[in-house]
Amino acid sequence: MSQYPYPMLDRPFAVFRKDDEKKEKTVNEWIQTLPMSDNDNLENVDVVHLGVPLSRSSISASAASEAPNALRNAWKYFSTYQIETNIDLADMQIVDLGDVKQSITDIAQSHRSISEAMYEMRTNHPKALPVCIGGDHSITARLIQGWKRAHPEKTIGILQFDTHFDLRPLDQGPSNGTPMRFLIEEGIVNGKHIHTLGLHGFFNSRSLKEYADSAGVTYRTMNEMRRNGISRTVKESLEVLCQTVDAIYITVDMDVLDTAYAPGAPASTPGGMRTDELFEAVFLAGQAPKTSAMDLVCLDPRLDVREASVKAGVHVMLCFLTGYWDRKRRGR
Amino acid sequence: MSQYPYPMLDRPFAVFRKDDEKKEKTVNEWIQTLPMSDNDNLENVDVVHLGVPLSRSSISASAASEAPNALRNAWKYFSTYQIETNIDLADMQIVDLGDVKQSITDIAQSHRSISEAMYEMRTNHPKALPVCIGGDHSITARLIQGWKRAHPEKTIGILQFDTHFDLRPLDQGPSNGTPMRFLIEEGIVNGKHIHTLGLHGFFNSRSLKEYADSAGVTYRTMNEMRRNGISRTVKESLEVLCQTVDAIYITVDMDVLDTAYAPGAPASTPGGMRTDELFEAVFLAGQAPKTSAMDLVCLDPRLDVREASVKAGVHVMLCFLTGYWDRKRRGR
Amino acid sequence: MSQYPYPMLDRPFAVFRKDDEKKEKTVNEWIQTLPMSDNDNLENVDVVHLGVPLSRSSISASAASEAPNALRNAWKYFSTYQIETNIDLADMQIVDLGDVKQSITDIAQSHRSISEAMYEMRTNHPKALPVCIGGDHSITARLIQGWKRAHPEKTIGILQFDTHFDLRPLDQGPSNGTPMRFLIEEGIVNGKHIHTLGLHGFFNSRSLKEYADSAGVTYRTMNEMRRNGISRTVKESLEVLCQTVDAIYITVDMDVLDTAYAPGAPASTPGGMRTDELFEAVFLAGQAPKTSAMDLVCLDPRLDVREASVKAGVHVMLCFLTGYWDRKRRGR
Amino acid sequence: MSQYPYPMLDRPFAVFRKDDEKKEKTVNEWIQTLPMSDNDNLENVDVVHLGVPLSRSSISASAASEAPNALRNAWKYFSTYQIETNIDLADMQIVDLGDVKQSITDIAQSHRSISEAMYEMRTNHPKALPVCIGGDHSITARLIQGWKRAHPEKTIGILQFDTHFDLRPLDQGPSNGTPMRFLIEEGIVNGKHIHTLGLHGFFNSRSLKEYADSAGVTYRTMNEMRRNGISRTVKESLEVLCQTVDAIYITVDMDVLDTAYAPGAPASTPGGMRTDELFEAVFLAGQAPKTSAMDLVCLDPRLDVREASVKAGVHVMLCFLTGYWDRKRRGR
Amino acid sequence: MSQYPYPMLDRPFAVFRKDDEKKEKTVNEWIQTLPMSDNDNLENVDVVHLGVPLSRSSISASAASEAPNALRNAWKYFSTYQIETNIDLADMQIVDLGDVKQSITDIAQSHRSISEAMYEMRTNHPKALPVCIGGDHSITARLIQGWKRAHPEKTIGILQFDTHFDLRPLDQGPSNGTPMRFLIEEGIVNGKHIHTLGLHGFFNSRSLKEYADSAGVTYRTMNEMRRNGISRTVKESLEVLCQTVDAIYITVDMDVLDTAYAPGAPASTPGGMRTDELFEAVFLAGQAPKTSAMDLVCLDPRLDVREASVKAGVHVMLCFLTGYWDRKRRGR
Amino acid sequence: MSQYPYPMLDRPFAVFRKDDEKKEKTVNEWIQTLPMSDNDNLENVDVVHLGVPLSRSSISASAASEAPNALRNAWKYFSTYQIETNIDLADMQIVDLGDVKQSITDIAQSHRSISEAMYEMRTNHPKALPVCIGGDHSITARLIQGWKRAHPEKTIGILQFDTHFDLRPLDQGPSNGTPMRFLIEEGIVNGKHIHTLGLHGFFNSRSLKEYADSAGVTYRTMNEMRRNGISRTVKESLEVLCQTVDAIYITVDMDVLDTAYAPGAPASTPGGMRTDELFEAVFLAGQAPKTSAMDLVCLDPRLDVREASVKAGVHVMLCFLTGYWDRKRRGR
Repeated sequence: MSQYPYPMLDRPFAVFRKDDEKKEKTVNEWIQTLPMSDNDNLENVDVVHLGVPLSRSSISASAASEAPNALRNAWKYFSTYQIETNIDLADMQIVDLGDVKQSITDIAQSHRSISEAMYEMRTNHPKALPVCIGGDHSITARLIQGWKRAHPEKTIGILQFDTHFDLRPLDQGPSNGTPMRFLIEEGIVNGKHIHTLGLHGFFNSRSLKEYADSAGVTYRTMNEMRRNGISRTVKESLEVLCQTVDAIYITVDMDVLDTAYAPGAPASTPGGMRTDELFEAVFLAGQAPKTSAMDLVCLDPRLDVREASVKAGVHVMLCFLTGYWDRKRRGR
Repeated sequence: MSQYPYPMLDRPFAVFRKDDEKKEKTVNEWIQTLPMSDNDNLENVDVVHLGVPLSRSSISASAASEAPNALRNAWKYFSTYQIETNIDLADMQIVDLGDVKQSITDIAQSHRSISEAMYEMRTNHPKALPVCIGGDHSITARLIQGWKRAHPEKTIGILQFDTHFDLRPLDQGPSNGTPMRFLIEEGIVNGKHIHTLGLHGFFNSRSLKEYADSAGVTYRTMNEMRRNGISRTVKESLEVLCQTVDAIYITVDMDVLDTAYAPGAPASTPGGMRTDELFEAVFLAGQAPKTSAMDLVCLDPRLDVREASVKAGVHVMLCFLTGYWDRKRRGR
Repeated sequence: MSQYPYPMLDRPFAVFRKDDEKKEKTVNEWIQTLPMSDNDNLENVDVVHLGVPLSRSSISASAASEAPNALRNAWKYFSTYQIETNIDLADMQIVDLGDVKQSITDIAQSHRSISEAMYEMRTNHPKALPVCIGGDHSITARLIQGWKRAHPEKTIGILQFDTHFDLRPLDQGPSNGTPMRFLIEEGIVNGKHIHTLGLHGFFNSRSLKEYADSAGVTYRTMNEMRRNGISRTVKESLEVLCQTVDAIYITVDMDVLDTAYAPGAPASTPGGMRTDELFEAVFLAGQAPKTSAMDLVCLDPRLDVREASVKAGVHVMLCFLTGYWDRKRRGR
Repeated sequence: MSQYPYPMLDRPFAVFRKDDEKKEKTVNEWIQTLPMSDNDNLENVDVVHLGVPLSRSSISASAASEAPNALRNAWKYFSTYQIETNIDLADMQIVDLGDVKQSITDIAQSHRSISEAMYEMRTNHPKALPVCIGGDHSITARLIQGWKRAHPEKTIGILQFDTHFDLRPLDQGPSNGTPMRFLIEEGIVNGKHIHTLGLHGFFNSRSLKEYADSAGVTYRTMNEMRRNGISRTVKESLEVLCQTVDAIYITVDMDVLDTAYAPGAPASTPGGMRTDELFEAVFLAGQAPKTSAMDLVCLDPRLDVREASVKAGVHVMLCFLTGYWDRKRRGR
Repeated sequence: MSQYPYPMLDRPFAVFRKDDEKKEKTVNEWIQTLPMSDNDNLENVDVVHLGVPLSRSSISASAASEAPNALRNAWKYFSTYQIETNIDLADMQIVDLGDVKQSITDIAQSHRSISEAMYEMRTNHPKALPVCIGGDHSITARLIQGWKRAHPEKTIGILQFDTHFDLRPLDQGPSNGTPMRFLIEEGIVNGKHIHTLGLHGFFNSRSLKEYADSAGVTYRTMNEMRRNGISRTVKESLEVLCQTVDAIYITVDMDVLDTAYAPGAPASTPGGMRTDELFEAVFLAGQAPKTSAMDLVCLDPRLDVREASVKAGVHVMLCFLTGYWDRKRRGR
Repeated sequence: MSQYPYPMLDRPFAVFRKDDEKKEKTVNEWIQTLPMSDNDNLENVDVVHLGVPLSRSSISASAASEAPNALRNAWKYFSTYQIETNIDLADMQIVDLGDVKQSITDIAQSHRSISEAMYEMRTNHPKALPVCIGGDHSITARLIQGWKRAHPEKTIGILQFDTHFDLRPLDQGPSNGTPMRFLIEEGIVNGKHIHTLGLHGFFNSRSLKEYADSAGVTYRTMNEMRRNGISRTVKESLEVLCQTVDAIYITVDMDVLDTAYAPGAPASTPGGMRTDELFEAVFLAGQAPKTSAMDLVCLDPRLDVREASVKAGVHVMLCFLTGYWDRKRRGR
């Protein structure tokens, strides 16, 4: 970015500083926006970032629509370098395309736009990995719908981190309780290619469990994961999916986290996953050879305490990207 | 549990204790629910209370859908007797019919149900005054639409307490920014019969003011009201309306209050009305001979601080009813 | 409203909707209140639920008296089905009898009422397991006192989850710091039949430890439990108690939880138990053949953050009941 | 540490720095504790300060028992000089005697101690004005009882700032809803010598109003005060009392304030008094020639927001003392 | 701004959209940043906006350094049109230059930069009115110092809204308690040209009052202002200053507001100014013919409740600018 | 009040009650202040406690300067007896000397005073272990600098618990990001004698890691510690340091804790250490034979939730002292 005319002043915070000269960047300095500078090449972008600010479709009132901007605001706290893995994301090209436009009062219209946005993104940036920030979980159905439309020949598998099955019947509309059912019933994803990890507590009725069984969904409760090892369980699911599908879509419902760690995830509850466990899980997911897209949903910044959940959300995205970059550097 | 007589309504979330023996009651002990006891006569009900838990239609995310139950929960803090006026509401018959059923993902459907609910309420309880608790301001358009359908021959006037005109164009859907425009453009209410009191600050664009002028809306800013006297301004508007319409509908957008008094009204701002001013204003409104219905909207309990706004909301309803009861006792 | 059959109790603040047609219920739809519907049989009730809203007896000011209603309000978030164990509580009959009536200024009178309430409950519902929600820990002394009066021939053992011994001397009155001392000194429970699990930190003076030793109380610190395994330690205590007493009373002081998990437990501290550990522990306690009653105390909803502690409290009750139901289904 | 001279009192929780060399002091540096330095003379003390940390007697749970220490902690924010009146309290001698000792579980015992403490204070410091910080409003009955015991020949009048009459019947015990009834029924104060200012809203039942009328209590609602002028109303009451009684006791229930100004007063409500109005009122009360004691009650620091209510409480005490000092300097 | 390449997407929020086609703008769309678009002329800028994020110099810890960005973030809530005055700021050219660069550990260096920044701004934009957002009140001394350096021939007067004199002695360094003393002692401003409005309570020691008297500072307490009329008092001061100085500098310490209205102003207290009073005051100040600069200080967003104080801060800036624009349109 | 013997220190804000007769004490009753009672011997003091209230030197605004008093205020919640180890600190002599005096606007001056205070403390109390409560991490550089000046012949090693290296370059001043770099570059501590434990996440840039490598700093990430065992890793570092240095300085940056456990540590993040892990770690550190001083930094009480972080801070100090006392009792 060109020299600021007032050497004594910091320019207003709002223009994200992409500073090619600066060697070490915070995440907000690293992620680009359009139009990119002349020497950037949109062709070579590794990751496209998309906000999907829809939460009118939540069963309970939610301001998860504010999550994309809340996470953007928190990027400045993070560097691109992860100390545990010694991986620096600085060389990865990532561009933030902005938010899918939303209708105020027509949820069906918003759902169509989300599907269309993923379709266009896949068409315009076929080499880039999409990372989408919701919004509530209803968006996952539409993002995968758009993905499938762009790649009708590909079999999609889903690795879902969630307290809930999200298999509610669709008769009350495509809400945040229904995305997996929608994808199964629309024939977009086979229930056998859905792995749901982290279920716990008293938040799934018996009939949903029976539906999951009949549809062939694989699921693991938190107790099972703790006994088997969290990482090991995640790896097992990724391995099965890698053998059976063409592309894996990772969806992280932030309410999989314990409410002590994610007060800002409206349906998070005691007994959930710890953040360090989830960070490791999404790192592994990013590393998996067939992982092709990722989303993060159901984080309501208004309910947050000291930005803990928002920071956890940025962490989840960065850990996932660290895994992805590790794999890409190795040429997988 | 037996079938609820109003299939379109959810019954109140909790059946309160109506205790006929108890001489002095708190508001939750006073307000009845269905089915009433044998010696009660639904015919003689003075006031019907309705929850309208829709806020998916808000421009910004809102949990105003939780207001009806939040206010019900706070009824227990209030007695039926007001010390300033020496009026006791205990002899007034009021029944809480419950909440209008809502669709999770089809806002248009919810809007139709709200209109229908008011229509049915007017048909079943023609002698009772409706008091409706939103929800966001989009519901006012539908409640008045339903009222008009029940009384097509009557000219309706509106006394609106609000920081905003709510005259936004309808091209982005019938949101909480549009109810007055909707009513004017649908021909349900003439702009000349709308009095908007309490406008202030930098929250109405110039074009909305120009629309208000062209539609003949009467409006007073907070500054004007303070100079002229709050009560005097309210009385003047009520007098004009009483002379020009058949029925006055009172709509209270809680964001007319200063944010220090109503932190739970999402769009409340500094410089707004004080609660004691609003309480006096709705008391006067209740007293006006042609006042025929009332609603209270845009109160998001999740944003509240120490239930201050929720308590202010209950106060508004009770002060309005005190004015109404004062008038009814005098036979006007 | 008709006379309530239990003159000593306040009926539950809200009569919840028991809906016999609904197949899958949330906890508030499942738990019944009096009078039950005609086809219910009070004889067959499996569990009786009692609120004990006394916290004037706390050493530090506490609003734990608000916990029974706060937990009732949160029942609606929970289904009756637990995914980890595949157990559905829907077939268990449970009735909420309401709250023990309290004196405003005579704590001794309130303590007598609590003892009396448990005595009556045992007499009227001898086959039902009592689940009592405090209130502060002083109530445990009185509940067990009432239980013993109903079953003077039975030896009672206590499994206590707590950060504190609760063995303070009684010279400052029977506060929430004294219940175990009261029971020992009154000869109601032998110190050798008390197992206290989860002690930690700097919150028990040396003299209390010496008293515990001299009275034969068995205790385990959090560190010991972590080294030995939480579940294993709980099982060991349950086995010892099953061999030495006739009936086991489970008492859960919510301050055993780490303050990160239970900010609403006034004396919770860093270094405490995690919620998933406590949930497993009470599940095991519910399964134990001689477990005969349970209480949950010292949860102050006013101190809570995002209802995390209140939800943890409901979880604790439900996990305990899941264990109990698992055992009852197996006929133990 | 040496024995404290007042066995019935807990000494102040922290001994503040009285620094004789320092010319300008903050309030914590100005208020003395026992033992005073050698060159101080306990005889000449102008004001004695007493904490009365009892709130177990509140109808709803309250931590008003923490108010005395919360206010002490906030003294450091205040200087002794008031800019509006150009009065400096620095030359007034004031000593903080500490807190009345409280029983944990015997409220009647605590009430006796409070009465005794005021009696002793009047006996030991007959020339000093007592300023007492509650605790809940039940303490006022006992403080005045003790005062009367020390001066049986004097007629006492009360100027009460309150949202409530505090005239509830005593059959549920001497709670914070009953002090004025207690004083009337015990014959300690004649109802005709009680002036209650600031009543408003729906928080006093009709029967209490009727009792007030029959007992001859003078009362003014907020609306009446606003119409008549707040200061003018206060002056009128003070003048009447000065003509009819020997000594005026000022009692400030912090819930007379609007909840926007005093979120920490549990029963404060919208529509109440503003802080600047109350500050002026207690200044006038301090100036009145027969004013002989003052208390401040029902402030729960745990409910406070940003210490606003606690700071308002310190303000109330200082404004009252400023009025008192103004009068004393003039020799009245 | 050029067309965004993705018609279905909103571009990321961070690039402030100056949208020349858009007729009605929110404040963030209206205020420009550098570099401006080609058809903008930096010469014609009416107002320059500057952030001064220094609060290490506060006596008590403060995060007022975060106010400039917090206010920028809140611009989006405001339109450019004020309903009370029917004035639209849209035609005013305003550019946000960014923030003065700060040293982390050398406060003196930061102070020098602030002075230099104002000097440069006056030199580069001699026709533009500077509006500066602190930071704490120590910045005012340096901003005026820089202003004076640019215009050594001009006599500067100050209109200060504040709870405090800010006349503390400088021996403990140039903190937020000293700016007026600094300016007097450095000979930059004559004490007789300082008008301090809004003093109240127990927050100014007697010696500061004596210093103010000896230096000829004019001051009005809140009580005096309320008796005399807030607006009238402001007008009187502006008239006096207009007759005696060449340029008036307006400084608004947000702690002049009552803590109920500005919880985010660390030193705000009960008994302070209301927001509507301050908004009117700064509007009048903006209108005054000789008003030449404005700052707003001592707003700590971390202490805020529901952004009330931050919104009040934006209001203050906009009301001031409305007054200024009203005057400029009239050619004064 | 008499002159304080340490002119460079502010005496503790409150003189706590040391009560020699009381057998069992809370921590505030146990820790002494100056002047001690006659039968105390300053020579025999085991531990000296020092507040270091400097946080103006923090990169982001911080009120960590309020931590010393916040922790003192929380001492009253803790007894001196730890149940896990059966160790009672009551026999240890510890004196709180107060706070290092701070300049308001000259950070360099404050840094010099801190260094001087540690030097004097080592000179006056050569047998006592210093425990210092910050303030931000910049104080560690100065405390160790003062320690080294008192013992120039001794080799110092550092065991640091931290999310960050604190090895930033010094060109932006000696902030809280630089202490370890300062000590290395000043030649006070050899990089090879620094062990940094608990690094995690995206908060250390790659260049800092390279600097750490080149300087020979030993570091372990949270992941490494979890794999290797937290306690085992701590023991390994202590063993290495015991073999290579003369004195070990323990520094605990509270942001090493997960933000769920320490919301009051401004830079704490998800994925950090749990409190029970840190308590065990500092216990081990206290036990190590060469451990000679300890500090605790970067705890901002204003950001805390329900005092959780403040209580964690007191815990850390007490667990460390328990380890130290265990070692001293054994004569090591």
